[in-house]
Amino acid sequence: MPVLAFWFEFASTYSYLSAMRIEREAASAGVDVAWRPFLLGPIFAEQGWKSSPFNLYPAKGRYMWRDMEREAEALGLPCRKPDPFPQNSLLPARIALLGADRAWGPGFAKAVYRAQFGEGAAISDPALMLRLLLDLGLDGKAVLAEAQSEENKSRLRLQTSEAQARGIFGAPTFIAPDGETFWGNDRLERALAWTVASDTGRS
Amino acid sequence: MPVLAFWFEFASTYSYLSAMRIEREAASAGVDVAWRPFLLGPIFAEQGWKSSPFNLYPAKGRYMWRDMEREAEALGLPCRKPDPFPQNSLLPARIALLGADRAWGPGFAKAVYRAQFGEGAAISDPALMLRLLLDLGLDGKAVLAEAQSEENKSRLRLQTSEAQARGIFGAPTFIAPDGETFWGNDRLERALAWTVASDTGRS
Repeated sequence: MPVLAFWFEFASTYSYLSAMRIEREAASAGVDVAWRPFLLGPIFAEQGWKSSPFNLYPAKGRYMWRDMEREAEALGLPCRKPDPFPQNSLLPARIALLGADRAWGPGFAKAVYRAQFGEGAAISDPALMLRLLLDLGLDGKAVLAEAQSEENKSRLRLQTSEAQARGIFGAPTFIAPDGETFWGNDRLERALAWTVASDTGRS
Repeated sequence: MPVLAFWFEFASTYSYLSAMRIEREAASAGVDVAWRPFLLGPIFAEQGWKSSPFNLYPAKGRYMWRDMEREAEALGLPCRKPDPFPQNSLLPARIALLGADRAWGPGFAKAVYRAQFGEGAAISDPALMLRLLLDLGLDGKAVLAEAQSEENKSRLRLQTSEAQARGIFGAPTFIAPDGETFWGNDRLERALAWTVASDTGRS
């Protein structure tokens, strides 16, 4: 099956919507998903942004939260604004990067999103991360230690540099096998259709 | 029929996509459209932006033009980047504001978008505006003179202030009769559905 890369940032609200539906949508399209956690902070900082654009531009931020309520409701998902917003997503991103090569990766990512935007929880809290890992039947302390190893920290920096090198400026971003890039939860369907069509054209 | 307000800026690429399809989509939903031209420039300036965000943030700008190509193709529309981008949209906005109360308004707005994003024409050119008005069977010189009257200029400033007061921060923006607001060409379907549902609920 062709593979669509799903680049996501835990602090990104619209990434939450995509994370909760991408497996279902990809399966019905006949596409595999590669989960690619990265950090938007360093990319935003290069643009001179020291916070989320939804905080820097209040009218846009107010609109986004209303839009999220509507979009989440349409998907049958809860929507709650964590305090503070945006959350520091460094620790969950490190864990999700480990999980990207392992079967528990998508389940962990969805659990983080559900805790943050469904329940308003603080995702920088190591105790919460430990609980989510234990809920997945994992050796939570070992995973946490590996996630915070120097090797894994530098892998996440590389992953974020790769995102930037690919022209990623926001999340979620979907990249088809031929490099075609789609930004935003609203483009998931097009990204899947493109992945299928370019795969059919190639085979 | 309930009325959906369509707030558009001529220099906005995604407003082009909405302008070319909103009459068809609204008619099949059973909704009337109120065309509301305004200027994004003063709203962007208050955010500290002196140009289009697509120029200020180059990665986002490169992506937007590729996305526009794809979205325009899906609608069977041509897509060309005018030079310079963004175009100065003051004169066509003044004319469209006059047209908003008259039968030729939507036809004029679509002609401006087609010239700009279909053919790459400079929409600040009074000669082009005159030609588009003549093509619509109008007394082009009289319309141009009325568009540039002090009264109409100040109406456009008021319209732009109203946009800002309503929390508009980008274009296209759709506002339902109950004030519910939707931003972006991707939200046209939801805006129409909301307009229909809130009208049914009220009657």
